[in-house]
Amino acid sequence: MLGLALRVYVEVELTPAPRLIVRSEGQGADLPQDESHLAAVVVRSVLGRDDVAITVRSSIPVSRGLGSSAALAVAAAAAAGAPDPFLVGASTDGHPENAAASVLGGLVAATTVGERAVARRLPLDHRLGFVVIVPERQLETSLCRSVLPTMIPLADAVHNLGRMGLLIAGLGDADLLLPAAGDDRLHQMPRTVLFPEAPALLDRLRRAGATMACWSGAGPTLLAICADAGAVAGVEAAAVGAMAELGVEGSAMVIEPDLDGLVVTE
Amino acid sequence: MLGLALRVYVEVELTPAPRLIVRSEGQGADLPQDESHLAAVVVRSVLGRDDVAITVRSSIPVSRGLGSSAALAVAAAAAAGAPDPFLVGASTDGHPENAAASVLGGLVAATTVGERAVARRLPLDHRLGFVVIVPERQLETSLCRSVLPTMIPLADAVHNLGRMGLLIAGLGDADLLLPAAGDDRLHQMPRTVLFPEAPALLDRLRRAGATMACWSGAGPTLLAICADAGAVAGVEAAAVGAMAELGVEGSAMVIEPDLDGLVVTE
Repeated sequence: MLGLALRVYVEVELTPAPRLIVRSEGQGADLPQDESHLAAVVVRSVLGRDDVAITVRSSIPVSRGLGSSAALAVAAAAAAGAPDPFLVGASTDGHPENAAASVLGGLVAATTVGERAVARRLPLDHRLGFVVIVPERQLETSLCRSVLPTMIPLADAVHNLGRMGLLIAGLGDADLLLPAAGDDRLHQMPRTVLFPEAPALLDRLRRAGATMACWSGAGPTLLAICADAGAVAGVEAAAVGAMAELGVEGSAMVIEPDLDGLVVTE
Repeated sequence: MLGLALRVYVEVELTPAPRLIVRSEGQGADLPQDESHLAAVVVRSVLGRDDVAITVRSSIPVSRGLGSSAALAVAAAAAAGAPDPFLVGASTDGHPENAAASVLGGLVAATTVGERAVARRLPLDHRLGFVVIVPERQLETSLCRSVLPTMIPLADAVHNLGRMGLLIAGLGDADLLLPAAGDDRLHQMPRTVLFPEAPALLDRLRRAGATMACWSGAGPTLLAICADAGAVAGVEAAAVGAMAELGVEGSAMVIEPDLDGLVVTE
């Protein structure tokens, strides 16, 4: 699976404390700030103790298909000194591509081989432009999974494999990007019942100049990719207009890819 | 799907003639040299007439998973002056990735979008080394397809999508190539009944130094890919030894990728 790092971040800071303290600012600050917080769970599993104050500052909207859990798990693991924050993030979140993008930055391929998560960087053309629609509604990952069929036609798998090749070619060289690279039969179609406005929004993004548009992760975030970054302002404006027309609360924004991945400071 | 062009060629030459003549040399020369020959079918469909002598010289073994039909169709279409030999080859053969590799050379992603075949070039690291095992037995494509299930577990599709990302990353940068990049659940496993020695041969290729090994197309050709081209001689020797031990007739050879694709001369 593919992951793409975008410039929206979560920061985890640890300081010594007599007992566990969790402080959370920004996105996700409404979640319980106690030992059940994902950052606390990860820090305790890495450190083997919990005499620490954890401060989480996040700009990543939660449960929107933006990989916020993986990013938080990676950051918490790194803050606690884990030797391989990628492995911690991938096993915590179950999505190796999210953890891989958080650690490596840029475009990544990641999957699980045997029991072990593995990730590889792929070329990402710097000429590409990105716009996201982040609806003001959450899709729980478990619900998103529940709508997926267990068995699928082989032809659909072949369809997605073909599109994945086109997608990787187009993300590596913007001149090769095609609208069809965003086609997906395995998860966007069944999940549309959870977000019925998605097809109309995706269509609008493409008509406004996005070369392709697709769901981000399990949604509801939608991602538009422009072979010509000069198109992003028009796509963003069209996204705002379409959301207003369709009554979809949320925000649309131009966003840059992150090429640095995980940053650890003392 | 992915296609890789290797340095084994078919050549098609057309000269004016009072009526259709088909001459075939090399591989496939045992097929009927009449209007049923694939080269004749393609040439007539492109030209709209058949007052032509067609000479086919092929080094590509037939019905071995090496894409010989696509290469022949592309060459015949180009010889007849088709504006887009790729489209002719893809529609004749039904495998856009084979036609794409024949036309573009190197590593390609190709699939069908709507009714139209599309292809994109992908980066191929020049440090990679390749060895093929070409058994002296043919697997008819229709038989190969008949053993494939119609419905598959979604998890298997996800498995293959994950491996495809790793494979493209590793073919673009040999340092990133992993054994798991050659794993496949969708066609190698069901087709093993048609070529029971394949798993043992693949295993031997890997143990001899191939970073990964997989079926070529629908088989029975097997392809070993070495992150370090210095390993190819040892892999070739191991292939010859394993074939003798297992009683698999055929040949094993080191082969270079072709980076030029279709060449048309007057």
